[in-house]
Amino acid sequence: MRGPELHVDVGRPRAGALGNAVSNPTRLEIPDGSPFGTDNLPYGVFSTPGSAPRIGVRVGESVVDLAATLGDDVFASPSLNAFMAQGKPRWDEVRERVGALVAGEVPAAAVHAAAAVTLHLPFEVADYVDFYASEHHAANVGRILRPDAEPLLPNWKHLPVGYHGRSSTVVVSGTEITRPCGQKARPDGPVFGPTERLDLEVELGFVVGTGSRMGTRLATADFAEHVFGVVLVNDWSARDIQAWEYQPLGPHLGKSFATSISPWVVPLAALERARVPGPVQDPAVLPYLRDDRDRGLDIDFALRWNGQLVSYPAYRDMYWSPAQMLAHLTAAGAACSTGDLYASGTVSGPTPGERGALIELTWGGRDPVDVAGRPSTFLEDGDEVVISATAPGTGGGRIGLGEVAGRIAAARQ
Amino acid sequence: MRGPELHVDVGRPRAGALGNAVSNPTRLEIPDGSPFGTDNLPYGVFSTPGSAPRIGVRVGESVVDLAATLGDDVFASPSLNAFMAQGKPRWDEVRERVGALVAGEVPAAAVHAAAAVTLHLPFEVADYVDFYASEHHAANVGRILRPDAEPLLPNWKHLPVGYHGRSSTVVVSGTEITRPCGQKARPDGPVFGPTERLDLEVELGFVVGTGSRMGTRLATADFAEHVFGVVLVNDWSARDIQAWEYQPLGPHLGKSFATSISPWVVPLAALERARVPGPVQDPAVLPYLRDDRDRGLDIDFALRWNGQLVSYPAYRDMYWSPAQMLAHLTAAGAACSTGDLYASGTVSGPTPGERGALIELTWGGRDPVDVAGRPSTFLEDGDEVVISATAPGTGGGRIGLGEVAGRIAAARQ
Repeated sequence: MRGPELHVDVGRPRAGALGNAVSNPTRLEIPDGSPFGTDNLPYGVFSTPGSAPRIGVRVGESVVDLAATLGDDVFASPSLNAFMAQGKPRWDEVRERVGALVAGEVPAAAVHAAAAVTLHLPFEVADYVDFYASEHHAANVGRILRPDAEPLLPNWKHLPVGYHGRSSTVVVSGTEITRPCGQKARPDGPVFGPTERLDLEVELGFVVGTGSRMGTRLATADFAEHVFGVVLVNDWSARDIQAWEYQPLGPHLGKSFATSISPWVVPLAALERARVPGPVQDPAVLPYLRDDRDRGLDIDFALRWNGQLVSYPAYRDMYWSPAQMLAHLTAAGAACSTGDLYASGTVSGPTPGERGALIELTWGGRDPVDVAGRPSTFLEDGDEVVISATAPGTGGGRIGLGEVAGRIAAARQ
Repeated sequence: MRGPELHVDVGRPRAGALGNAVSNPTRLEIPDGSPFGTDNLPYGVFSTPGSAPRIGVRVGESVVDLAATLGDDVFASPSLNAFMAQGKPRWDEVRERVGALVAGEVPAAAVHAAAAVTLHLPFEVADYVDFYASEHHAANVGRILRPDAEPLLPNWKHLPVGYHGRSSTVVVSGTEITRPCGQKARPDGPVFGPTERLDLEVELGFVVGTGSRMGTRLATADFAEHVFGVVLVNDWSARDIQAWEYQPLGPHLGKSFATSISPWVVPLAALERARVPGPVQDPAVLPYLRDDRDRGLDIDFALRWNGQLVSYPAYRDMYWSPAQMLAHLTAAGAACSTGDLYASGTVSGPTPGERGALIELTWGGRDPVDVAGRPSTFLEDGDEVVISATAPGTGGGRIGLGEVAGRIAAARQ
């Protein structure tokens, strides 16, 4: 394994403080109300010019290099996987050490301005499963696609519906999204070309730290032992491609071209204050899906389209809990691995302003929304989408889950 | 990377020939009509007692240790991925060298009896996609599930329908398959318990050697540059779990508990003689799916259930070619990676004896088949399933694709 490489580039804000930087300890400045205070401490993978990607923690406007401060090669890795595989007691121990580290003096060479580093995909994605856990989203989609039928299908309240997505096209925030081409239905038969209904989906993703063997099941109570943390997810979707292809085996090319995630993995420990009861589940779920803890998470999302706030989905109304999703995922004996990502599906709340996908916000494209003066239904070339989120922190503040951003590039013909 | 470890265990058939084994070259015996002649030369990962898994080639009843003979650490790896990532010119060069090696004298210590080695999963599976490329299979399933409607859905002849499966539960032949539990529909609501409709699917799998970048497309003509070889696939399926869960996002737990593959990856080069025209595609496919080469593969499968031959599906009738599947997979810009596996979906021919899944063979469980005197519909605990296949070789012979076997263990309650 590579050893840590120390660099004294601490970014522009600290450039004047350099000199014999390695031996020059510094105290981290954390602005009042920062979403990255000591109650958050998310992990990511960063690099500075000329150095290899390694693991850091975000504190205020800084990134602290864990490879350079904790004396353990596991943090010199270009992904979180090896650290995550060490298990929950180790996660707890490192969180405690990092808390103590950032509260004291840190070697200046291990501190980088967040604005000056490059952020990478924080973990190698093993299997990727996308759920469909919002009742409001599932019901809205049902009403749009099947206006004369029951909005929810018969299985929906009995199991967290989900399917496998493509792990090799999970990319970090900021990666350009090329408009996908595919088959679109026409009265005379399908044509091939750029999607005309390019959509986004506001989602929360759960990152598996330690897995489970094939043929075994995880209980809902095992959730916190196995899940390391959360990321924000934008599950880009081409609705016209998806509509034509998805019967009978589900979405494929309409989803597999790109899924973006935020660069900072917020540890589950930082979300303990976010737990809320969640909605009543009626009918009662089968025993393997019972989840006696507070099932909801009080996470507020903001969806910005070309800078304009167009929606603010709330996670607290999600019907299925992440522990139920994990128990279901493994109920038939599927193995679970370090680096597995499972996402919630679109987060939508009960009101129109809380819808987490354009197909809902524009009611299937019927009702354009105003985007900085432009009436809009689906994404246009050059458009930028930014999803951000916060959760309750200590002392009445909020912690930040960062953001996941992406800009649409024209299709390659 | 580990170096090769030499062992003089050449297995029982050669035990008498030992002595100063390392310096004692031997000539490989290849029985007449062997499915593993010099026109085949499939790659796998094997180990002998006390030694680490490494890459070998199957010849006759022997496995030749490539780590010990070719002087390249890439073959000392426990998976084919690093070798496959080296690309087609390298695959061609190694195939030529291996052909020359096994035609001459091989160090005895590098030759192991096939019956005496342990075979491992031959590659690390990146993304796994399962297609639905047999018209006979798709139409039979349509007739069984929707007897009053058109057997094929409107999209079926326009695109190779497919979906993502779970890569972490792709396992090597011989791995025990635990009967999965899951939700089964009942008139009063679903119950959780062991599947009562445990099925198999006879499939061919294509192993990607070199990938493609996100945002780019592969053409059908790129197939042989990117696909390294083929394996046999048994896509185990729990039909009752699948039937209840699959709307609207496709199969999940009904498939994700296990997918078995054969241990020997047959290089594409060994299948050149198997190319046949394949069925006419009407309506004409869209330009990105045009495939001007012979689209079919003359591969004969045999499906044995507790030793009894119950079906002999033929691959030559498959509607969609593997090159078309790859072009479709990447059409919207999905990245493709070394170790990606994409499978054909169930291989079924036009006659009842050529159906590659029990749901078809028993017409949804209505018509039991005789399995060694036992009228049978779906798999019972203790049942063993063996799928084997052959393709045309040189001189009128057949090459073997080996077999993929699995035995059903009782559910864990």
